[in-house]
Amino acid sequence: MSTDERPRLGLGMVGYAFMGRAHSQAWRVAPRFFELPLRPDMAVLCGRSPQGVATAARTLGWGAVETDWRRLIARDDVDLVDVVTPGDTHAEIAVAALEAGKHVLCEKPLANSVTEAEAMAAAARRAAEHGVLAMVGFTYRRVPAISLAAQLVAEGRIGRVRQVRAQYLQDWIADPEAPLSWRLDKQRAGSGALGDIGAHIVDLVQFITGESITGVSGLLETFVTERPVAEGFSGLSGTAGSARGPVTVDDAAVFLARLSGGGIGTFEATRFAWGRKNAIRLEVNGTDGSLAFDFEDLNVLHLFDATEPAREAGYRRIVVTEPEHPYVAAWWPAGHMLGYEHAFTHQAVDLVHALAVGAQPAPSFDDGLAVQRVLDAVERSAADESRWTTVAGTPADTPQEES
Amino acid sequence: MSTDERPRLGLGMVGYAFMGRAHSQAWRVAPRFFELPLRPDMAVLCGRSPQGVATAARTLGWGAVETDWRRLIARDDVDLVDVVTPGDTHAEIAVAALEAGKHVLCEKPLANSVTEAEAMAAAARRAAEHGVLAMVGFTYRRVPAISLAAQLVAEGRIGRVRQVRAQYLQDWIADPEAPLSWRLDKQRAGSGALGDIGAHIVDLVQFITGESITGVSGLLETFVTERPVAEGFSGLSGTAGSARGPVTVDDAAVFLARLSGGGIGTFEATRFAWGRKNAIRLEVNGTDGSLAFDFEDLNVLHLFDATEPAREAGYRRIVVTEPEHPYVAAWWPAGHMLGYEHAFTHQAVDLVHALAVGAQPAPSFDDGLAVQRVLDAVERSAADESRWTTVAGTPADTPQEES
Amino acid sequence: MSTDERPRLGLGMVGYAFMGRAHSQAWRVAPRFFELPLRPDMAVLCGRSPQGVATAARTLGWGAVETDWRRLIARDDVDLVDVVTPGDTHAEIAVAALEAGKHVLCEKPLANSVTEAEAMAAAARRAAEHGVLAMVGFTYRRVPAISLAAQLVAEGRIGRVRQVRAQYLQDWIADPEAPLSWRLDKQRAGSGALGDIGAHIVDLVQFITGESITGVSGLLETFVTERPVAEGFSGLSGTAGSARGPVTVDDAAVFLARLSGGGIGTFEATRFAWGRKNAIRLEVNGTDGSLAFDFEDLNVLHLFDATEPAREAGYRRIVVTEPEHPYVAAWWPAGHMLGYEHAFTHQAVDLVHALAVGAQPAPSFDDGLAVQRVLDAVERSAADESRWTTVAGTPADTPQEES
Amino acid sequence: MSTDERPRLGLGMVGYAFMGRAHSQAWRVAPRFFELPLRPDMAVLCGRSPQGVATAARTLGWGAVETDWRRLIARDDVDLVDVVTPGDTHAEIAVAALEAGKHVLCEKPLANSVTEAEAMAAAARRAAEHGVLAMVGFTYRRVPAISLAAQLVAEGRIGRVRQVRAQYLQDWIADPEAPLSWRLDKQRAGSGALGDIGAHIVDLVQFITGESITGVSGLLETFVTERPVAEGFSGLSGTAGSARGPVTVDDAAVFLARLSGGGIGTFEATRFAWGRKNAIRLEVNGTDGSLAFDFEDLNVLHLFDATEPAREAGYRRIVVTEPEHPYVAAWWPAGHMLGYEHAFTHQAVDLVHALAVGAQPAPSFDDGLAVQRVLDAVERSAADESRWTTVAGTPADTPQEES
Repeated sequence: MSTDERPRLGLGMVGYAFMGRAHSQAWRVAPRFFELPLRPDMAVLCGRSPQGVATAARTLGWGAVETDWRRLIARDDVDLVDVVTPGDTHAEIAVAALEAGKHVLCEKPLANSVTEAEAMAAAARRAAEHGVLAMVGFTYRRVPAISLAAQLVAEGRIGRVRQVRAQYLQDWIADPEAPLSWRLDKQRAGSGALGDIGAHIVDLVQFITGESITGVSGLLETFVTERPVAEGFSGLSGTAGSARGPVTVDDAAVFLARLSGGGIGTFEATRFAWGRKNAIRLEVNGTDGSLAFDFEDLNVLHLFDATEPAREAGYRRIVVTEPEHPYVAAWWPAGHMLGYEHAFTHQAVDLVHALAVGAQPAPSFDDGLAVQRVLDAVERSAADESRWTTVAGTPADTPQEES
Repeated sequence: MSTDERPRLGLGMVGYAFMGRAHSQAWRVAPRFFELPLRPDMAVLCGRSPQGVATAARTLGWGAVETDWRRLIARDDVDLVDVVTPGDTHAEIAVAALEAGKHVLCEKPLANSVTEAEAMAAAARRAAEHGVLAMVGFTYRRVPAISLAAQLVAEGRIGRVRQVRAQYLQDWIADPEAPLSWRLDKQRAGSGALGDIGAHIVDLVQFITGESITGVSGLLETFVTERPVAEGFSGLSGTAGSARGPVTVDDAAVFLARLSGGGIGTFEATRFAWGRKNAIRLEVNGTDGSLAFDFEDLNVLHLFDATEPAREAGYRRIVVTEPEHPYVAAWWPAGHMLGYEHAFTHQAVDLVHALAVGAQPAPSFDDGLAVQRVLDAVERSAADESRWTTVAGTPADTPQEES
Repeated sequence: MSTDERPRLGLGMVGYAFMGRAHSQAWRVAPRFFELPLRPDMAVLCGRSPQGVATAARTLGWGAVETDWRRLIARDDVDLVDVVTPGDTHAEIAVAALEAGKHVLCEKPLANSVTEAEAMAAAARRAAEHGVLAMVGFTYRRVPAISLAAQLVAEGRIGRVRQVRAQYLQDWIADPEAPLSWRLDKQRAGSGALGDIGAHIVDLVQFITGESITGVSGLLETFVTERPVAEGFSGLSGTAGSARGPVTVDDAAVFLARLSGGGIGTFEATRFAWGRKNAIRLEVNGTDGSLAFDFEDLNVLHLFDATEPAREAGYRRIVVTEPEHPYVAAWWPAGHMLGYEHAFTHQAVDLVHALAVGAQPAPSFDDGLAVQRVLDAVERSAADESRWTTVAGTPADTPQEES
Repeated sequence: MSTDERPRLGLGMVGYAFMGRAHSQAWRVAPRFFELPLRPDMAVLCGRSPQGVATAARTLGWGAVETDWRRLIARDDVDLVDVVTPGDTHAEIAVAALEAGKHVLCEKPLANSVTEAEAMAAAARRAAEHGVLAMVGFTYRRVPAISLAAQLVAEGRIGRVRQVRAQYLQDWIADPEAPLSWRLDKQRAGSGALGDIGAHIVDLVQFITGESITGVSGLLETFVTERPVAEGFSGLSGTAGSARGPVTVDDAAVFLARLSGGGIGTFEATRFAWGRKNAIRLEVNGTDGSLAFDFEDLNVLHLFDATEPAREAGYRRIVVTEPEHPYVAAWWPAGHMLGYEHAFTHQAVDLVHALAVGAQPAPSFDDGLAVQRVLDAVERSAADESRWTTVAGTPADTPQEES
């Protein structure tokens, strides 16, 4: 068989839980369905537990292991550091990796605070001057139906955006006896539903509309304030030796918003919507039409074209599995549905293409910072009687001079 | 044929536009499908235009006409005054009718302001002491699927309510060239989407949950501030002789809310959601399950029972057309779907039963006032940077004394 | 009030069960929403039980009663005889009425046998020569979404028809303990699911496509051959004094078909599809597009336009409640859904218009006969090892001469 | 990293088109998500074109290549031969491989004729005596929602099966200008929609119900009898040098059926249903409930439980992504939807487990033969005026002796 002459892209991944499995699948599958300009090599996996990381590397297919991320980023055979740890470690690892000249793919949310996110975005900007590139993993952008939605809006298919409604509904801790985890600990996770899943719909709305969220009015709620401590579980503040420990993050986050183009929106992120498992529901109403999406039916995008005669107008259920649709030509014939992890593959593909030509991949750390600033504004508003709160760094944040 | 020995209920209706047609259909049809303790008689129709009211009476099947509502409420053959005029006239007519000893059915919203609504509710309470009864027409309560939802919540089927999301989406003025009407004039309509359709979802949430909305954070938006004046159209402030006139109400209203039982909610009322015609969408998440409803599929209620084993759990699509369901036994066999106007018939039926036994019909003017106070709080919040605003007359409005 | 100068149309109805209630509602409501050229007068109701018919007349709003249909059709104040009795009596009543010079509206199926249906169609043709008109009640044609479907096909919107799939699914006797009724007695009902609900989908396919079903291959099945005799129930063959009696009709009927335009189809009528209450499901695939309809969502028609670019093509969910849609302008604003009985009103409206100008209303008795011939071919095929069976009176029944 | 001590399973695959890509993905991914008792090794890929197979092997990740399948099955490093070629070559390759002592996974349909399928099934039975095992690739059985459906039926959840309706709707050649391919050539494909996609729904119905289809009445139709010959296309009979060539298979196949348990069914396979891309729609009605599935929403199974009180009964929309559901625990959290190719992974996993313990994997070649016999009966019925035709090898094929 012929030699592969494409340059190698050495991958090092930090973390190997849920997101580690998803990213590994992406790196494994991407070269099999897409033509890539570089040859990804799943070189090194990093985790603190020697035994854990060894087992994970074998299962997930990584060639070597490290137990200290500082050693990982020092390795010559690693060109890209893929950060899939909890949010409180993102900033330190990502900044160090970028400063070491490694490209970085960092899971969302970019960080647990605006301060950290700003430092990361600054590091990314500095690194970019040297051709070292950074991307944040708002993966849902690359669900084909969502990519198509963004294309249609950009093409003016629904006109100017007037309203959005965005919901991310789950139910995995609706049962008050579901145990504590790091995702319910403010120290580790930064926030609860807001940062974990609310971050996704903030990014998706900004991605699809091409606009910024400029101001918000928010409300956070914790329905279950104390939960059982799982056996063998430790490391959460205030849980040592207790049967139950405190939930220190929000269970649900709701907020109103304004967009930079003049539209308004409602947002909701919750882990308490019994019966909704991973329902990312997006609706965009423009001056000339509407779009609707629900991740529970992820291969479908609904498009309403208001310029059609009323007698025949109706939401079109576009099954986004045609070769004409984003990413789809690489996969299967029409109607052979894609699943959750395909978006991770698309993310890997686009990242490799960007790296090969030295272009900034999207979403950038600046995009991640923009999301973080919206989350921060929601938290500040919620802490201040839901008062309207400007999002830092947006047009609303920079009052125009009076004439 | 045998004589009908039931007591007569003389009906007088003020107004004969959209709601007049719906109420007429209800009065006409109710006795044909339901056994009523009184015999409704569509006696008198009232409207300002002699010719208009005569034509309407003939078309809609009313026995006589009046052109002055004061004469209508003075008639001996009128026992119940059905008020289906725009909101700015409700208070005067309803209070006068009640004081004249006539029962009143008043269309929603109860009034255009809290002050008016308070006066009406007070009048209703005074009248009730003399057996004169008042009801406000939040008709959607009597869509069978919605009635069933309220029953299931009251029975504890989904546990304690944690979250609601309520949307009323229309698109009839999404086109900026849609002409002005009284519904876009603050003087006549009080508010826009907020009072016209937002009022419905406020009432429905309070009805289904059996709780009060105690506080809100709101945002109002007018997307199209000027519209064409339809030929022959007059009476709107500032439109005399102009080709275009100002829209003085909100096009969309969004708000966050807290419920008296500890839950939270998001609300949206808009006339700009292209492709959604009359989409009343309600979701309620409780501690033990969830409910979901969409008026675009009005014969269906979705129920998720969280106590079922995960392997078999799923939203049940209940087709609410069984004899066991509210109101349905009087109509057709299962699966023979009901439509929009059936709820008006159910409203008439329940009202006649209440009158026959001297019981307070629901929703009462106090219920209508409660809705008005929520709308008022939304407007005040929207005018004050979306700051959290307590709804008057609710538990949150009456701080508990410190011990 | 002004005098109504429209000619009176005296109505006499034979029967007052389920269909009698539906027709009464139609006659009552039609003049209130539609402008009619004649003035329908619900004059006389006929039933065998003096007490039963008197009670029904009062409830349903008929002016007088008869206990013998022969007297009804002899009355001078009756211009139109509305036949809503079981199928075994249709022929005798309808033919007599037509011969007496009365217009006839006859419920479906037209008759219990082809022989009867042929006699009725012949009588209708004779009567038509004298301006006396007959119509058969395939009411579902006038559900607005179905009317729109027929319009779109006629306009060539989906090209030439290649395939249809038609299902009418119910579950009302899926429980083997559901008692016997006349609908399960071959003597009274002619057939079971085939004639009762299969007749509807046969007519609907012929209506929507504008084509004839020319041949079939059929299979009939009776799952529950014996059922409890309801107390007080009598008149079914072989049930006297028994606790259980035989079911003498089909529970389910399935058949394959060819259409006169070259297409093929599958048909299914069943009363045993647990969970489907009145699911009339129709799909039509043409050379340029497709249509889909489900009565469980009766205000919606789905249209796929195959000429659209693949990237944006998708089934459009047309909410058939716009003024541009058939019949809708007379009712409510967009999105205010119609129900089952509205189609009966539309049927009455169209019939009155046809009578006023002396035009043949559709569906005619010939249309009813065509349905009967299809049902007959299905039964003959089922009795002959499902062998392909030509439908009498269709192109396939009249071989072209060889040139 | 520790040594993998599991026995190696050497894989050799013949063919590398659509199915080859799907099977490769399955072999690649299975060991990463599932614990397997053997270690699959993607050893050898076989194809006739040296360059084509080399490129495919590199893209798909196979270690070596062969251009003659006879050499492949002779190799010592191949334990399992995976046959993903067109149907006309299945019999020769599979029988030879089994006789050479190689396990076989053969794509569906098992063969192009009953004669071939019988030979293959006989070979498989002989091989099984020596521990050499064969499986046919009716992959859709392992879509989790379909596996769950089969489990629920087997557990008696819907009682005894009365009716099924099964449709496989595509539209990829609805355009008459879609070019010829081997799938439209009777020599290569055996039949058209019938064998390609009809085979799937035949197998799925037999799998879910656990019953046999015992008799059928069928109809086949070819709508477009001549199509363009794609440039560079050759090898189809009668197309040499022509711009257009004949379609020699059915475009659509419809049939009625009886099941061994007494139920009846309707089946439809078509490539002409504009707007349906890969719609495998299955409904099963039992004595105690119903199931419904549509591949366009493949992560969902609908269950109707007829034993629930009518007030709360309704089709449950089970999102089949819980750890309690078949195969799901190995993948992602609830609500993170799976796609088309996951079923191939499940097939590989189950096959490896069966091989490891020497158990017969399902579906067996006998299962594949049973499908082939149904297809054959459909073709014979269609050729004989749709006359009822017994399926060979079923209870109906073996008349009981009279007593």
